[in-house]
Amino acid sequence: MLNQDHKDRITAAVDAAFDQQLHFTGELIRHPSVRTEEGSAQDFLYAAMRDRGFAMDRWELDEKALKEHIGYGPSTVTYDGVTNVVGTFTPEMERGKSLILNGHVDVVPVGPEDQWNRSPWDAAIIDGWMYGRGSGDMKAGLAANLFAFDAVRAAGLIPTGTIHFQSVVEEECTGNGSLSALMRGYTADAVIIPEPEENMLVRANVGVIWFKVRVAGKPTHVREMSEGFNAIDASYTVMEALRRLETEWNAERDEHLYFENVEHPINFNFGLIRGGDWPSSVPAWCEFDVRAALYPGVPAEKAWKAITDCLQESSKSLGTADAEVTANKTGFFSEGYVLEEGSTAELVLERCHQDVFDTPLETFTTPGYLDGRVFTLYGNMPTLVYGPISEAIHGFDERVNIESVRQITKSIALFIAEWCGVSEEEARTQNRI
Amino acid sequence: MLNQDHKDRITAAVDAAFDQQLHFTGELIRHPSVRTEEGSAQDFLYAAMRDRGFAMDRWELDEKALKEHIGYGPSTVTYDGVTNVVGTFTPEMERGKSLILNGHVDVVPVGPEDQWNRSPWDAAIIDGWMYGRGSGDMKAGLAANLFAFDAVRAAGLIPTGTIHFQSVVEEECTGNGSLSALMRGYTADAVIIPEPEENMLVRANVGVIWFKVRVAGKPTHVREMSEGFNAIDASYTVMEALRRLETEWNAERDEHLYFENVEHPINFNFGLIRGGDWPSSVPAWCEFDVRAALYPGVPAEKAWKAITDCLQESSKSLGTADAEVTANKTGFFSEGYVLEEGSTAELVLERCHQDVFDTPLETFTTPGYLDGRVFTLYGNMPTLVYGPISEAIHGFDERVNIESVRQITKSIALFIAEWCGVSEEEARTQNRI
Repeated sequence: MLNQDHKDRITAAVDAAFDQQLHFTGELIRHPSVRTEEGSAQDFLYAAMRDRGFAMDRWELDEKALKEHIGYGPSTVTYDGVTNVVGTFTPEMERGKSLILNGHVDVVPVGPEDQWNRSPWDAAIIDGWMYGRGSGDMKAGLAANLFAFDAVRAAGLIPTGTIHFQSVVEEECTGNGSLSALMRGYTADAVIIPEPEENMLVRANVGVIWFKVRVAGKPTHVREMSEGFNAIDASYTVMEALRRLETEWNAERDEHLYFENVEHPINFNFGLIRGGDWPSSVPAWCEFDVRAALYPGVPAEKAWKAITDCLQESSKSLGTADAEVTANKTGFFSEGYVLEEGSTAELVLERCHQDVFDTPLETFTTPGYLDGRVFTLYGNMPTLVYGPISEAIHGFDERVNIESVRQITKSIALFIAEWCGVSEEEARTQNRI
Repeated sequence: MLNQDHKDRITAAVDAAFDQQLHFTGELIRHPSVRTEEGSAQDFLYAAMRDRGFAMDRWELDEKALKEHIGYGPSTVTYDGVTNVVGTFTPEMERGKSLILNGHVDVVPVGPEDQWNRSPWDAAIIDGWMYGRGSGDMKAGLAANLFAFDAVRAAGLIPTGTIHFQSVVEEECTGNGSLSALMRGYTADAVIIPEPEENMLVRANVGVIWFKVRVAGKPTHVREMSEGFNAIDASYTVMEALRRLETEWNAERDEHLYFENVEHPINFNFGLIRGGDWPSSVPAWCEFDVRAALYPGVPAEKAWKAITDCLQESSKSLGTADAEVTANKTGFFSEGYVLEEGSTAELVLERCHQDVFDTPLETFTTPGYLDGRVFTLYGNMPTLVYGPISEAIHGFDERVNIESVRQITKSIALFIAEWCGVSEEEARTQNRI
């Protein structure tokens, strides 16, 4: 356990550098790191890690290798030039436990930009919030990881365990970024991922499957509409069948530990739709993208079978032999995970959180995908997904609460110090910061 | 009335040149004249008309002028380089009645080409059908107009009334092509448009309105799906409201002469849909294109008001103040028309049809848009929409029945001769063909 002097020095150091941390976070937000365009943001983070003296590693994702892993999510893009960045701090003498501080650098598209009150990339600070796509999800967290480490150092302390700072891609679509980092050999005694989790710790979350449904048939002129098959109308029939499956799965929540009290744990989202070619032609095709969720413990293959069975059944209900319903995996093919209660890592975080927030650490179940499943399911590492308050992630005017970021940074800094252990820096170097 | 000798000579001349006519039709189909790309097909028709000695006219559509006309359909494309072609035959001495032979050169998109059994542009002839996008709708008709005239001439006869051969654009989306021809001053005592009408005459047809509906709202991360607004789901709610309006209008068919026995005269077609940006973001927007129909006699503005009222009402039912439903006109804004019974033009066509087909001319009501409304409503001309048997227009493997094309050509040729009158060509020139 940390002594009060160390705690005070560390939290004071977070405060002292917090303006700089916000400036850094804003710069990171200004890199519009949507999928496959993370390069400049990774350059920025690479430089920031290198400047801290970390041993640097950067590599392109290897789809062929990833495909061999059960946690792989089929990609619809090429990974040419798409890289992870990891910076490793190694103590002179390894005495404490090791730690991975992970975050994803990819952000989701902004949607119709005219519905934003300002540019999604300007990182404006207004009334205690920092705005921008990726501000909450999760560039504030990526910055917090680095500045938490800085605070420990600025407090005149040196961690005595190895720390891997990971900036990964693909968290918003496949999870292949963290998976690639795991497959590259990065493991540790615990993992922290400061996703925007309302100052709480994630106890459990769902798995996610992405798939594209194509409904196709025989079109006609509108004048013969009743003879033809309208793929847009038919798509809604198929969506209704999927909604019934979603209802079934939600009804089973009592059978799944930590999900009993989640109001609607299983969300099927119809996120994209495209269909038809001409207003006066009955549309021959329609495609829509679905994001479905599954409980921890349910193999993705089992959920996928239920989904494809549902689609096959719905195709019969379209009432014409001309209709064809097909589905393809297009991203996440992931299982959910549970953070087992009682780990040492969680106990340490509870203490750090209590010190900073003066309230007990709450845990909760989230119905969204998290890379935590990679480290938990395939690396057997206790993984603490724990991060700041945000609003409108994936929406317009996404923002992160600045005071919350400050506190989370302090909490992570204390965690580093207690988990990895610290030694006092020698006097001769104490003044350098 | 034509004497039997003239009839025999004319129909024999159609037969004699029919291989050539099919060849010409095939060449025309091989020009993929989708919207705004009609240029090369118009070049081809221009040359064909010029070679027949017609006085040629070709002009670019003038959107600004068109907008002043009540029959204008708002265009979503620019008309730079988009032209109509008209060739005029003028007799030495005008004794008979004048005639417009109209056809549209634009064709609808092919849709997913892999669902065609062959290229949509190869104009293959198989088992008595000519295939290809636009084969039925309506390049066979455009060719029939010219070859019907040729047959009269090849029979050694010269029409004694003026004939305008029109190849217009924009029939599949706005009707602005024929409207532009009318506004340029082209009128006649009757009009024939050989659209694919199953060897029948159109008695009445619907008006058509095209519009795009945009449903927009406030999106969120899927984990907060129940708080957010899903524009794709909401679009379906809006579509259902439009379907109820469609049902209401169909229930009124008894009040509309010639529509009492049409099974489903009013078709609302959802022809295109586009929405959302990311599978795991609740979609903020969705747009769909609607083709709606209205009865003859119903002003387009009145139908439009009912549609926009319906949309406004449906937006309230979305249950969130964040939802916005807007609609814009995107093409046809046209009223339907009725071909009044008892016109001389129709009587003449009845006779010609009986002569060729040996069965009485049937009339029918069609629930599809026709340029006939331009000539009927705004030019007060008896307009005979009458053409060959087709299958799968606007669909895959569109085709036109070759024997039907032959007969329709004969029927039009006899009509030219009777309507315009003919004089015997002088002996010295009889051998030139």
